[in-house]
Amino acid sequence: VEPIPPTIEWRRGRVRLIDQRALPGELRFVECATVDELGDAIASLSVRGAPALGAAGAFGVALAAATIGNADEVRSAARRLAAARPTAVNLAWGVNRALDAWVRGGADAALAAAERIASDDVEANRTLGDIGAELVPDDARVLTHCNTGSLATVGYGTALGVVRAAHERGKRPRVWAGETRPLLQGARLTAWELDRLGIPVTVVADAMAGSLLASGDVDVVVVGADRIAANGDVANKIGTYPLAVLAREHVVPFVVAAPTSTIDLDTLTGSAIPVEERSGDEVVRIGGERIAPTGVAAANRAFDVTPSRLVTAIVTERGILRPPYADALRTASMRA
Amino acid sequence: VEPIPPTIEWRRGRVRLIDQRALPGELRFVECATVDELGDAIASLSVRGAPALGAAGAFGVALAAATIGNADEVRSAARRLAAARPTAVNLAWGVNRALDAWVRGGADAALAAAERIASDDVEANRTLGDIGAELVPDDARVLTHCNTGSLATVGYGTALGVVRAAHERGKRPRVWAGETRPLLQGARLTAWELDRLGIPVTVVADAMAGSLLASGDVDVVVVGADRIAANGDVANKIGTYPLAVLAREHVVPFVVAAPTSTIDLDTLTGSAIPVEERSGDEVVRIGGERIAPTGVAAANRAFDVTPSRLVTAIVTERGILRPPYADALRTASMRA
Repeated sequence: VEPIPPTIEWRRGRVRLIDQRALPGELRFVECATVDELGDAIASLSVRGAPALGAAGAFGVALAAATIGNADEVRSAARRLAAARPTAVNLAWGVNRALDAWVRGGADAALAAAERIASDDVEANRTLGDIGAELVPDDARVLTHCNTGSLATVGYGTALGVVRAAHERGKRPRVWAGETRPLLQGARLTAWELDRLGIPVTVVADAMAGSLLASGDVDVVVVGADRIAANGDVANKIGTYPLAVLAREHVVPFVVAAPTSTIDLDTLTGSAIPVEERSGDEVVRIGGERIAPTGVAAANRAFDVTPSRLVTAIVTERGILRPPYADALRTASMRA
Repeated sequence: VEPIPPTIEWRRGRVRLIDQRALPGELRFVECATVDELGDAIASLSVRGAPALGAAGAFGVALAAATIGNADEVRSAARRLAAARPTAVNLAWGVNRALDAWVRGGADAALAAAERIASDDVEANRTLGDIGAELVPDDARVLTHCNTGSLATVGYGTALGVVRAAHERGKRPRVWAGETRPLLQGARLTAWELDRLGIPVTVVADAMAGSLLASGDVDVVVVGADRIAANGDVANKIGTYPLAVLAREHVVPFVVAAPTSTIDLDTLTGSAIPVEERSGDEVVRIGGERIAPTGVAAANRAFDVTPSRLVTAIVTERGILRPPYADALRTASMRA
């Protein structure tokens, strides 16, 4: 078992990130000295994952407050940062929290708020992992998607945190990691994390999920969330919704694990969640090489929305929510 | 519009194949002078696609009959060839047809049988395309998977043949091509074919199908088949079954297009179809580069099985079959 460093932290006036584009080949870091550098790191997915983006947004405001003299410019830098990725609600949430602190107490207060968000995130994830582990049976074969581990958060992980907590309790979970095209966060990041943690993992093409569920090789599906609407609809990495439909077809629990910072009561249903469309180049180029003929178009929706009726449970640091979700989500968020 | 050469043909005592591993970068050919060379081309997927494998199996027997003196060795070479890929029933079917001809009339008869299978395949595909085109509405957005075009057959194509026939009738179909991980037959081959034919195509990650169906961007799903069991269960490229479940969820027709050579009345249901498991390296290596950490396992089922209850229609060269399929499949096959 090898430890995984914090995904994001403040170091001597800079924001240091694990460069997730270099994994699993190399564990290296990006140091952002300006809010624009951090914005680039967010846009290029050097840092990604809804909870990690929450901390990144807050640290970005701290960086802006520390490096930009003009208050209007701090505000406009914060707005740009909040808009860098539209689907994960945590990014704007983190930006706004740090901005509020900055308004009240200046640059130091913004940094303190960011540090608080970062440490709260790790604590929330450990707690939700512990709580969620009860949904993972002994010797469970867990199907997951994308990366929801330490790397998607400041530390520990959400859906993968649940698996990790089950592992720490001696439940011997084994993981099917959907590779998660186009950017392969499952094959690259989830496999890397689980391997370091000593949790057995097998990588599969995303399209193999149907076969795995049909053959009875999955006991529970556990995924994260980029935004949970007030009615319990869940936006998450593209490919999550098919897993939910297939899980219901085979009567396998479909569990969403996310800290309450992912809940957005202002978004009433999933249809109101903005879904980021990214460049088709991410689909037709792999490692710089073009896989499709030159000139052929590609579409690349980065997220999809799973209706709440397909969600068996939502695990948060404040408990396991069950349908109907509207009241449960309101209560869980209100205590924030 | 640029013509697509025959996928497989007999040329001066050799079997010439389009090397599908080199596409879309380069259109080049493999010439097999021995049955073992052809076996390697089949195992490495230089030639693939159930109908093309039927012709390849038959030409392989012709090659064995022409190059091997000993009758027992011809038989054992034929057996090895028939077993090279277990799921597509067409391979063993083609081998057995040519072997029967060889028993009756020697090497010349085996070659004649293979040539007949090849020309029959093109004719069957043109006919089933014509017949199936009626299931493609004007301006339809068609979702397909893997490659079922000219390259998957001796010529013209099955599911893509249906799209092609609709295009030739002026119906203006547009295609969403699932990239088809791990080997990317959709992004590489289907995109290449449709581009050459002037049919608009957009490549998507396989996992985006759920989002496309949910947003109402798909009018019909059309796929091929590697084997159709007596009850109508369909084995096809991994990732087909999720499309069928999602199509039903969104009340979109799910159409299978396949020549009657794909029907296997000896296989009673899908659960009896052998599903080929290929090397996990195909999943974790892309273009020679490893995407997952060294030592991490990968699973690679090459096919999945779609239960007949999810299949809206099966298009064959003898007509469109509708549920219940058992009688319709028996009748369609018996006339062979």
